[in-house]
Amino acid sequence: MMVITKIKDMQTAMQQYRREGKTIGFVPTMGYLHEGHVALIKKAREENDIVALSVFVNPLQFGPNEDFERYPRDLERDQRIAKEHGVDVFFSPDVKEMYPHPLSVQVVVKERVDVLCGKSRPGHFDGVATVLTKLFHIVMPDRAYFGLKDAQQVAVVDGLIRDFHFPIQLVAVPTVREEDGLAKSSRNVYLSPEERKEAPALYKALLQAKAAVENGERNAEAVCALVKQYIQTHTHGEIDYAEIYSYPDLKPLETLAGKVIIAVAVRFANARLIDNIILDIA
Amino acid sequence: MMVITKIKDMQTAMQQYRREGKTIGFVPTMGYLHEGHVALIKKAREENDIVALSVFVNPLQFGPNEDFERYPRDLERDQRIAKEHGVDVFFSPDVKEMYPHPLSVQVVVKERVDVLCGKSRPGHFDGVATVLTKLFHIVMPDRAYFGLKDAQQVAVVDGLIRDFHFPIQLVAVPTVREEDGLAKSSRNVYLSPEERKEAPALYKALLQAKAAVENGERNAEAVCALVKQYIQTHTHGEIDYAEIYSYPDLKPLETLAGKVIIAVAVRFANARLIDNIILDIA
Repeated sequence: MMVITKIKDMQTAMQQYRREGKTIGFVPTMGYLHEGHVALIKKAREENDIVALSVFVNPLQFGPNEDFERYPRDLERDQRIAKEHGVDVFFSPDVKEMYPHPLSVQVVVKERVDVLCGKSRPGHFDGVATVLTKLFHIVMPDRAYFGLKDAQQVAVVDGLIRDFHFPIQLVAVPTVREEDGLAKSSRNVYLSPEERKEAPALYKALLQAKAAVENGERNAEAVCALVKQYIQTHTHGEIDYAEIYSYPDLKPLETLAGKVIIAVAVRFANARLIDNIILDIA
Repeated sequence: MMVITKIKDMQTAMQQYRREGKTIGFVPTMGYLHEGHVALIKKAREENDIVALSVFVNPLQFGPNEDFERYPRDLERDQRIAKEHGVDVFFSPDVKEMYPHPLSVQVVVKERVDVLCGKSRPGHFDGVATVLTKLFHIVMPDRAYFGLKDAQQVAVVDGLIRDFHFPIQLVAVPTVREEDGLAKSSRNVYLSPEERKEAPALYKALLQAKAAVENGERNAEAVCALVKQYIQTHTHGEIDYAEIYSYPDLKPLETLAGKVIIAVAVRFANARLIDNIILDIA
């Protein structure tokens, strides 16, 4: 596995692969890799000649009161996991390499961001779209892999690739869960033992909603109420949102139809957890 | 010469050239081609296997009170000129093809835009950077050609390519002038016969400034005063700006040193003309 920290070196390496006619799968991450990331790597490994993985905790997508400083980092462990799962190129630039001076240009996301996490994290998706625009040009992949746990991120990247005509195929990979249903996340390490026990309630609440829809419930408000009630009853967390939208457009719905996302965010003492399910309603 | 109007067809054609290992030079224009554009085409023709030219009057870069509707258009003539000068691929999408729905993402330019034309045309360079991001991904050139008449645009594109790591070389081509010194521009057709006679005063004023600098003048304000006075004396136009900055950073200067731009914009009754010279001061 090649380990690269400089943009120029990365561009040169990837250009060489492209010249050889090799297809490139790209897994952009913020590191502290877990099985969710491994699922992305495995999918990329299946579909491409070369798998490139980036680890970059992007300051631009953190708000002033968010966890940029204490976001978990372990580059050695990340390299080991990446190597074990067949990553060919491991790209881990530092902040100075990615932002050597104030950016003269930035990507601003105008749709799909006034709801869910975008609403409570202003500027977050601008930071995501900007760093991905940089990374996409550095890596120039054929396919880019994202986890559906961050379903709004997938929707934003879908818009970014479509509207800017990036010659890249977006591959969305289902959420990987612990045995008790908790969605894998680097932020799970923040949870106290008691919170960890409560955390699977997010997914259980979503499954309750799913069951209600399967039993014929089509009223969005009623389904949201179910989700909220379950979480309030089973956790000490504070609900940030529990909402339903069309997917990937993220438009509000009164009556459920077509592809919809039910998404929740819950604040615990030391961590804010998110989860979602996407349903295709006939 | 291939004539293409659909994004998909353009991407397919350009991909084919890249697969064959051909280098691609790209000349993005708003059409109504004149000798300034021809100079870009010629330069691209010299340096690349394939020359692609786009003609797209981009609504996103026009302000609400600007000349989008009446901007001169003549696609047949543009095709003839392009063909005559050896363009291989002529890309002329319509507005609906480029903007089929509200953009979910946009590029915002944060540096190099609070001066010169950027100051009096808010949002203009956001529109330029956004459409170029789209076009760059559609064409995927090795080199992109821009005229130095729009020197601030060259500076903005320089920042766009650098900060987003587009794998594209920016080639800036010197301004082409009429025999009497007037910079070639599609907007020159707006001038009345009397205004046309006065218009070369912009360049003459810049040459006066250049002579003063060559004679040792290093005070930015004094040089600007010279330029303004000459234009005020020799035209009925209203000076929008006559300013000096470092180039391409476009930072203010009190004392001239290094690479500097002296730039003017003058409003006539039916047209706003711009011109500039770039000096390298030892």
